[in-house]
Amino acid sequence: MTERRVSRAIRIGDVTVGGGVPVVVQSMAKTHTADVRATVEQVKRLEACGCEIIRVAVPDSEAAGCLSAIKKGISIPLVADIHFDHRLALAAIKGGVDGLRLNPGNISDPAHVAKVVRAAKERQVPIRVGVNGGSLPKTDDESLSVVTRMVQAAMGQIKLLEDMDFDLIKVSLKAFDVPTTVEAYKTIAGIMPYPLHLGITESGTPGCGSIRSAVGIGAMLYLGLGDTIRVSLTGDPTEEVAAAYEILKSLNLRVRGPTMVSCPTCGRTEVDLISLAQAVEKRMAAVSRPIKVAVMGCVVNGPGEAKDADLGIACGRGRGAIFRKGELICTVDEKDLVDTLMAEVDKLVRAIS
Amino acid sequence: MTERRVSRAIRIGDVTVGGGVPVVVQSMAKTHTADVRATVEQVKRLEACGCEIIRVAVPDSEAAGCLSAIKKGISIPLVADIHFDHRLALAAIKGGVDGLRLNPGNISDPAHVAKVVRAAKERQVPIRVGVNGGSLPKTDDESLSVVTRMVQAAMGQIKLLEDMDFDLIKVSLKAFDVPTTVEAYKTIAGIMPYPLHLGITESGTPGCGSIRSAVGIGAMLYLGLGDTIRVSLTGDPTEEVAAAYEILKSLNLRVRGPTMVSCPTCGRTEVDLISLAQAVEKRMAAVSRPIKVAVMGCVVNGPGEAKDADLGIACGRGRGAIFRKGELICTVDEKDLVDTLMAEVDKLVRAIS
Repeated sequence: MTERRVSRAIRIGDVTVGGGVPVVVQSMAKTHTADVRATVEQVKRLEACGCEIIRVAVPDSEAAGCLSAIKKGISIPLVADIHFDHRLALAAIKGGVDGLRLNPGNISDPAHVAKVVRAAKERQVPIRVGVNGGSLPKTDDESLSVVTRMVQAAMGQIKLLEDMDFDLIKVSLKAFDVPTTVEAYKTIAGIMPYPLHLGITESGTPGCGSIRSAVGIGAMLYLGLGDTIRVSLTGDPTEEVAAAYEILKSLNLRVRGPTMVSCPTCGRTEVDLISLAQAVEKRMAAVSRPIKVAVMGCVVNGPGEAKDADLGIACGRGRGAIFRKGELICTVDEKDLVDTLMAEVDKLVRAIS
Repeated sequence: MTERRVSRAIRIGDVTVGGGVPVVVQSMAKTHTADVRATVEQVKRLEACGCEIIRVAVPDSEAAGCLSAIKKGISIPLVADIHFDHRLALAAIKGGVDGLRLNPGNISDPAHVAKVVRAAKERQVPIRVGVNGGSLPKTDDESLSVVTRMVQAAMGQIKLLEDMDFDLIKVSLKAFDVPTTVEAYKTIAGIMPYPLHLGITESGTPGCGSIRSAVGIGAMLYLGLGDTIRVSLTGDPTEEVAAAYEILKSLNLRVRGPTMVSCPTCGRTEVDLISLAQAVEKRMAAVSRPIKVAVMGCVVNGPGEAKDADLGIACGRGRGAIFRKGELICTVDEKDLVDTLMAEVDKLVRAIS
């Protein structure tokens, strides 16, 4: 992996983004912001599954007026997502938000941006310059690539902010197309010092969208880019947070909850491995500790992977060997495998708690 | 994206792998190979969803004896997966398979490998040198990294093959750990000319496993590596093929079936977008043409993304505007959106068929 780019650190509430700290996971509420109760309830569910920063849409003054109440009800930093109307950004800052997201595609009037920056500076509220492929500023130059237009839009707004001596900046350049997105982030990473918020925009429903996001966000993280990530999925926002951690876990950038190694099964397998893996996964969902468990179907890679995990099952014909930290501890019938493994998981959880 | 590495092309049956042709999608049957009927039935389901090469396990001589019957029943090239016993490889070649996979971790006796190579050469059957992190050859040198051990295992067996003037070679170096896997492939890609079969081994159940595979395989494809891919998931093998295409589609490396752009929804959305996107996705599943459809919740990125797609919906309050190739064609009530969109999809499919 490429060594991580060290960006300038900023603080969104009490969460540091950038400067080499671990990558921060965020999501966005899907409730109507003016429905304070529903929004707080959803954010609390997101906090419980590891969301570290939450963003809410601020489409109108009613929504802006609810931000302070939402902030009181939640424990993680609150970011207001603003489009079109800079006055909503001013109201959000007054409401006590921990961060703003502005879209240079639809808040481009320098006088309006300046008003927001003055207020943000006074309260030390960071601003994300959030460019999106679907809402780029108009251009007369048809020859410019989408990547160039994205980078130019961001750099234009960054300059406005810097000219007012404001540097609490975070940047995103999201598109649906993965190579476009990666190229845009790579380009801007080389020409400005601020932290990067990564995402693939409008990536779709959880099935396809988590794969597209994993390819795009994963490639950028592999290349050393990214200080915070948001996976955008058309589904429950807890799925966004779960997918974000899976991406980070697969690059060893964050640890959260169990990791399951399981083989795809093949004609060599002599147990019902798919059911076994599903049963283990279901019961492991209740485990919050970062335990690595392997569920393996045969003698080819089974013992190797099972020994490499904290706990592992390597199956043979109708039976399975259970390994703990590389040591074979017992061999049990297929029907007893899940219970025996989970008893060992419980022991291990107690030991490390 | 990095320009694709051009490997030496080989032919697995009538499918070319390497040499710059599009990345080939493969999977592995999960049936008992000796159950010819179940295996052929599963492979036919995989063919129908785009699988282009199929591998089956050959754990014993009974399985080896069934390969010719399986080959007669299917339309895509058949690869025999061999571990431990080189005589099964000889039997598979006699049975008419289109390719072999040998594991240097458990078939390392040069005399045995030589016998297989002679038979493979006679019938021009390619061999995949398939190294797996869970079954590496033993080593006395504890200081070697897993990456080094994987690369050395592969290069050792490649040398045996080359020394017998055999070059119908494909190489894989799969591990569960993504950075390890990517590093191993990057290393070997620079020191030998053969095509690469990419995969993240034992990546888990479809939820986590497809994300881990997307990060790993996606990063390698982004770096220009890879001639064929297999996503290993503990689940139905059609899920492996679907995930493989989603990975390839997100890097614009293959086109297959529809692509859906849909926004994650937020407090700005005034329709039930999640249900709408799910309904569209369900009905698009029957469309085999590569149509890009956008389902967008609001005016921020909605019109931009909807215009960029072949067909798109950009929603407002209880209504949606439908775009075809960038042109607004009508605005309809939320309840009529799916039917109106799908009527347009049908028209487009007829027009391009």
